Amino acid sequence: MKDIYKHGGNIKEVAKKYNLKEEEIIDFSASINPLGLPTGIKKTILRNIKNIIHYPDPQYVDLKYSILEYLNTEREVLSASNQGKLTDKNILVGNGSSELIYLAVYAIKSKRSLLISPGFSEYERALHNVNSKINYLILNEEDEFNISANDIIDRINNTDIIFLCNPNNPTGRIMLKEDIVYLLEKLQDTSTILVLDEAFIDMADKYSLISMLPHDNLYILRSLTKFFSIPGLRLGYGIGSEKLIGEMENFKQPWSVNQFADLVGQKLFSDRGFIIKTNIIIEKERNYLFDGLSEIKSLKPYKSYTNFILVKINASISSIILQDRLAQRGILIRDCSNFRALNDSFIRVAVRNRNENKKLLKELRSILI
Amino acid sequence: MKDIYKHGGNIKEVAKKYNLKEEEIIDFSASINPLGLPTGIKKTILRNIKNIIHYPDPQYVDLKYSILEYLNTEREVLSASNQGKLTDKNILVGNGSSELIYLAVYAIKSKRSLLISPGFSEYERALHNVNSKINYLILNEEDEFNISANDIIDRINNTDIIFLCNPNNPTGRIMLKEDIVYLLEKLQDTSTILVLDEAFIDMADKYSLISMLPHDNLYILRSLTKFFSIPGLRLGYGIGSEKLIGEMENFKQPWSVNQFADLVGQKLFSDRGFIIKTNIIIEKERNYLFDGLSEIKSLKPYKSYTNFILVKINASISSIILQDRLAQRGILIRDCSNFRALNDSFIRVAVRNRNENKKLLKELRSILI
Repeated sequence: MKDIYKHGGNIKEVAKKYNLKEEEIIDFSASINPLGLPTGIKKTILRNIKNIIHYPDPQYVDLKYSILEYLNTEREVLSASNQGKLTDKNILVGNGSSELIYLAVYAIKSKRSLLISPGFSEYERALHNVNSKINYLILNEEDEFNISANDIIDRINNTDIIFLCNPNNPTGRIMLKEDIVYLLEKLQDTSTILVLDEAFIDMADKYSLISMLPHDNLYILRSLTKFFSIPGLRLGYGIGSEKLIGEMENFKQPWSVNQFADLVGQKLFSDRGFIIKTNIIIEKERNYLFDGLSEIKSLKPYKSYTNFILVKINASISSIILQDRLAQRGILIRDCSNFRALNDSFIRVAVRNRNENKKLLKELRSILI
Repeated sequence: MKDIYKHGGNIKEVAKKYNLKEEEIIDFSASINPLGLPTGIKKTILRNIKNIIHYPDPQYVDLKYSILEYLNTEREVLSASNQGKLTDKNILVGNGSSELIYLAVYAIKSKRSLLISPGFSEYERALHNVNSKINYLILNEEDEFNISANDIIDRINNTDIIFLCNPNNPTGRIMLKEDIVYLLEKLQDTSTILVLDEAFIDMADKYSLISMLPHDNLYILRSLTKFFSIPGLRLGYGIGSEKLIGEMENFKQPWSVNQFADLVGQKLFSDRGFIIKTNIIIEKERNYLFDGLSEIKSLKPYKSYTNFILVKINASISSIILQDRLAQRGILIRDCSNFRALNDSFIRVAVRNRNENKKLLKELRSILI
């Protein structure tokens, strides 16, 4: 895999390289919920080991209905504009949101695309696979990496697909709902699809565009990986127009969501307690971590709307060296030097629990001050 | 999903349709090992629930080395022709062999392809996704659906990819090693890739072409789904030239093999006892089932080299009606009417344990005689 496509979260590789036990590593590089697994998951897995001798349901009917139920409640809260009800024909489930990104690119057969940089590298990787001509909107550091709807609109030039991650990864910045609605209005009467990656929206759900669906130009991606701490299980879903979802189903490999992900997925949404608790802890700990990072003179954290923080290093130490020094102490952060439009002055850290955040701050201070 | 791409093994759908409990259904439609799960799997899953909060290793290093160790032993037994050692650069792991089929088609960017009918429908589905021009070699019922190397060679006309399943699904027929070697010789100095799907070779491993690897024109697929009874976990692997595997890695989505599949996969190959026991029971029960089917006048089973049997119905009842009648009695078979080059006179049944095979034969007799 090319370096530009390398991700965080590879605990195994780091453990080997630094001669650590996997459980000794505190992982700030993947943005997983610090609460860990919701309580019901273990039981669901135990009960269903016997079921791995069967293929998963290739249509994932029950899983889709669980998602639908959750979405319709969410839409009511957000007072959906009655664009029509969502049905199972508007939903696609996938092996993490990665699969759903690739399916969009393959089904749309993208020829011209627009990416926002810095951004999640899998969009670019998928587009390269179909030889799409990529136009990049480079975000401005001076402007805190904010995304402007007009900047996107200026660059739509026969673009068939636009990827927009909100909150954006790795910046943590948010685009306001009205700005995205304005962008969508400009797309009307075109065939351009806005792929809105809401992988990190759970911690900022009032900014979700879910109430605008179904919409001919909008395809929303959701990941269950981060919020429910199940990156090892692989589960995400996409919501879009019947037409687009139908085309993607033609490209979808059967059974790509495994039996455990299917069954666990059906239980997750009903765990309201976990959802509320997560939102409380993330907000509190994000503030704590942000304040702590701000107090270190050579660091500049960017205000985040989700469970990770982009940080600029204003010192002579590079992100690569800083990552290495922290790894020696059992702390794994995301070196952002391989993100397009960033460089080796940037790192990304997940928001974790109080003790872990404290430890990160302490080690950062000892290295940087 | 179009009807032609529908598979067997959808227990859930059948349970709903016939108002049965899932555990009441005897599934002869998916060809899973009747021994069920190897004993160590449950323990591996239990021990690793805590690890689903981490992403799987995107390189799957440990898994690849387990596979390599197994393959090198197998190659020694088959006295590999010393074409050079296999390394981890020759191996790709995937979400079942399905993912590995799609990756081959995408990486080769197939323009002209050759399929053998009847055959596994996912080859065709993947090729349609890249608008490949498909040439079909239609097998002859009168010739017991045998595959001739010369028939394949006659049809290679700028073909960039040939799919060959050995033993073939759904016929259970085998192509001899020397015939495939002869075919490979004809491919030399061309860029044509022979995708040899050995998903069902474990029950007939002396016919494997594994000893011919690495080879520029050969890509072998293996599935762990059927032999180790883990279709719900999703795991397969592909072995080919460094060049081809490298190109496919570029197309591969990260983490498509989930954490459980990764970890369980590392344990499977060492369970020699399970492998030997399976081969004994399959051979014994296949003979029992074949003889029983032969004794029913209106049925003609085809000699099989793996754990399922293709059966022709020589009576006025269609495969669809027969499937329905059996499903009412809690028995699920594979109606083969949606296989290209077959029709509603064909069914496929898995080889199961003695009691289950007895029950199938009894119900077939009561319906057909």
